[in-house]
Amino acid sequence: MFHTPHGLVETPAFMPVGTQATVKALDPGDLRAAGTQMLLANAYHLHLRPGDDVIRDLGGLHRFMGWDGPILTDSGGFQVFSLETLRTIDEDGVDFRSHIDGSARRFTPETVMRIERNLGADVIMQLDHVVPGGSPLEVVRHASERSIRWLARCQEELKRHSADDSSPRQTLFPVLQGGTSEELRRGAAETVTDMGDWAGYGIGGLSVGEPKPAMYAALAVTDASLPRDRVRYLMGVGFPEDLLEAIRLGVDLFDCVAPTRMGRNGTAFTSSGRLNVRRAELRSDGEPLDTSCDCPLCTQFSRAYIRHLFVADEMLGPRLLSLHNVHFLTSLLRRARDAIVAAMPLPEAPPI
Amino acid sequence: MFHTPHGLVETPAFMPVGTQATVKALDPGDLRAAGTQMLLANAYHLHLRPGDDVIRDLGGLHRFMGWDGPILTDSGGFQVFSLETLRTIDEDGVDFRSHIDGSARRFTPETVMRIERNLGADVIMQLDHVVPGGSPLEVVRHASERSIRWLARCQEELKRHSADDSSPRQTLFPVLQGGTSEELRRGAAETVTDMGDWAGYGIGGLSVGEPKPAMYAALAVTDASLPRDRVRYLMGVGFPEDLLEAIRLGVDLFDCVAPTRMGRNGTAFTSSGRLNVRRAELRSDGEPLDTSCDCPLCTQFSRAYIRHLFVADEMLGPRLLSLHNVHFLTSLLRRARDAIVAAMPLPEAPPI
Repeated sequence: MFHTPHGLVETPAFMPVGTQATVKALDPGDLRAAGTQMLLANAYHLHLRPGDDVIRDLGGLHRFMGWDGPILTDSGGFQVFSLETLRTIDEDGVDFRSHIDGSARRFTPETVMRIERNLGADVIMQLDHVVPGGSPLEVVRHASERSIRWLARCQEELKRHSADDSSPRQTLFPVLQGGTSEELRRGAAETVTDMGDWAGYGIGGLSVGEPKPAMYAALAVTDASLPRDRVRYLMGVGFPEDLLEAIRLGVDLFDCVAPTRMGRNGTAFTSSGRLNVRRAELRSDGEPLDTSCDCPLCTQFSRAYIRHLFVADEMLGPRLLSLHNVHFLTSLLRRARDAIVAAMPLPEAPPI
Repeated sequence: MFHTPHGLVETPAFMPVGTQATVKALDPGDLRAAGTQMLLANAYHLHLRPGDDVIRDLGGLHRFMGWDGPILTDSGGFQVFSLETLRTIDEDGVDFRSHIDGSARRFTPETVMRIERNLGADVIMQLDHVVPGGSPLEVVRHASERSIRWLARCQEELKRHSADDSSPRQTLFPVLQGGTSEELRRGAAETVTDMGDWAGYGIGGLSVGEPKPAMYAALAVTDASLPRDRVRYLMGVGFPEDLLEAIRLGVDLFDCVAPTRMGRNGTAFTSSGRLNVRRAELRSDGEPLDTSCDCPLCTQFSRAYIRHLFVADEMLGPRLLSLHNVHFLTSLLRRARDAIVAAMPLPEAPPI
C-alpha cells in the first residue's frame, strides 16, 4: 500500500481513466461502488479543456470532479506524441497544435509541472519523450535519455514550487522508458534511482504492440533494478491476464481505458471470459451477467436487460457495463492482494 | 394519494418516462435520489423490443428494469398514430409496421390489454384512437367515441384476465379524448364515468399545439365532470408552468419526456428559469447550477463542471442534468402538495 494526501491505496490497484475529469459514463458514487481507490486524469486534455487555470481557480481537480480519493495525473506526453500530427520536438520541449481548436501550444518539463500543480493531483507524472513501439534501438535510447534529462528539469521545477506554501502536496513519479531493450530498461531504472528518493516509478513504453514475452522480460529487469519498497506503476495496461502476470513481476499500480471503452462498446469481462452482451441468445436470459460478481449490474439486473439496453441504444447500458468491468478488475486485484498477503498463488486469469 | 400493489403515490406526482424500460440516462437509484415515486413505460416500444412475452417470462417489468415502485404503462396508441406512416385503422383496431424492423403488427383493445398484462404494470392505459391536434370537430368526435367503444372492449378483456389467478393486479385507466371541445370533453367524462368505477382517468389529446387557454378550459370542464375523489392524469405534460396551472384545475398525475430530453440536450430547469449549461460564462463558475436545489448535481458539482461535461461531450453530463431536471419537477410538485395540505397558495412557476 502507499499513502497520499487523499488517503491510502492498497496495492496492487487498478486506476480507471478519467481523461477529461470524468471516468466515461461513471460518477464518483459509481466508482466507489466499483471498488475504485484511485483515479487517473490527463493533464494534456485538462490543460486544453477546460484549462488547468480554471480548475485551479475552482479549488483543484478533486473538488472539480467530486472525487475525494487519490488522483494521479498523466503528463500528457503520450497524447502530445500520439494525437498531434503538427508537432516539433527539440531538447527543450514540444510545440504542438491543440486537437480541439488548432491553437499553438508548447509543453516543456517546466510547463507540464505547472499544469499538474494547477490540477493538484496526489501523484504527478513527468513529461517524457514517447516514441512508437518498434522504433529502432538508437531512437529508443535517445528518447529514454532525453526523458531522464527532462525528469531532472521536472525535479528542479518542483523544488521551486515547494518554496511556495500555496502549492499542493504532490509526489512526482519518473517514467522509465527503454522499449524492450533489457540494457536500456536496466540503465533507465538505475540512473533514475540515483537521481532521487522516488516514492514510485512509472513504467512506460510497454503494451504498445510488442510481443508479450518481450514486455514481461522488460518488466522483470526493471523490477530487479528498482528499490524493493517503491511503487511500480505499469502505464496503460488493464487486461486481466496482463495484470496478473505483471503482478507476478512486481507491479503495484495500473491504469487502462479498456474496462470503460469495452463497457461502452458492449463487451463484458466475466469470470468465464469476454462476452458480447448483444448476443442474440441473451435475449431472454434471466441470469446475472456474471454469477460470481457482486457489482450493481450483476446484483440488480439480468443478462436480458443489459442486452436490451445495448440493442435499444440506451445510455444506461454503457454505464452499467463500464461499472461492471471496472468492478471486475478491482475485484481481481483485491483477490490478488489477498493471495499475496496470505502467501498463496495468485488467482487465475479468465480465458480471453 | 393513491395506492398501488407497489406502494402509494402522493399526489400531485410527476412520472419520468421510461419508454424502453429505462428512464434515459438514469438508473433506479438515480430515480429515487430524484424523488421519483412512479414511472411510465411504453407498451408499444416494449412489445416490439424486447417483446412483452420476454418481459413476462423474466418476471415482469418491475423486475426487468429493477424498479420496485409503481409503474404505469401507456398503451402505445399515441406511438402507433405518431410514429407509423404505414398504418390502417378500422373499428376493430390498427394495423401498422414496426418502426424497428418493418414487421407487420396489429393492435386491438384486446391485444393491448394482453401486452400490458404481460408487462405487469400497476396502472395500465386503454388503447385509444388518437388524432392530430387541430383536427376538425367531427374527426375529434369520431375518435373520442371510438376510444369509448375501445374502452368497453378493454374492460371486457380485463374481466377475462381476472378469472386467471396468474394475472397481476392491475388498474385500468380510461383515456378521455375530445380535443379542445368543451362539449366533447364533458360528454367523454360523463359517458366513461357511467361505464365503471374507475380509480383514475387519463386525460389525452392536450398539449398538442393548441393555445394554452384552450387546454386549461378543456381541463376545467373535464375536472368538473369527473367524480371528486378519483385520480386525474394529464398525459404528456411536464413544464413547470403547465404543471402548476393543471394542479389548480384538479390534476393529480403527470408524465413528460421534457426533463430528460432537455437534460440530454443541455438545458436545465432552475428556479430562475431555463438555462443552457453550455453558455460560455459558466466556464469558471464555481456555484451550483441552482443554489436552492439539493439534487446530486447541485450538491456535488459546480456550473463549471456541468458545462465542461457537455462541452467535452461526456456522458455524465446528460445523466446529471436529467437527474437534476427530474428532481426539479418532483420538488416543485412536493411543494405544491405541501401547499395544498396547508391550504396555502401553490408555489410560483419559475420564468420560462
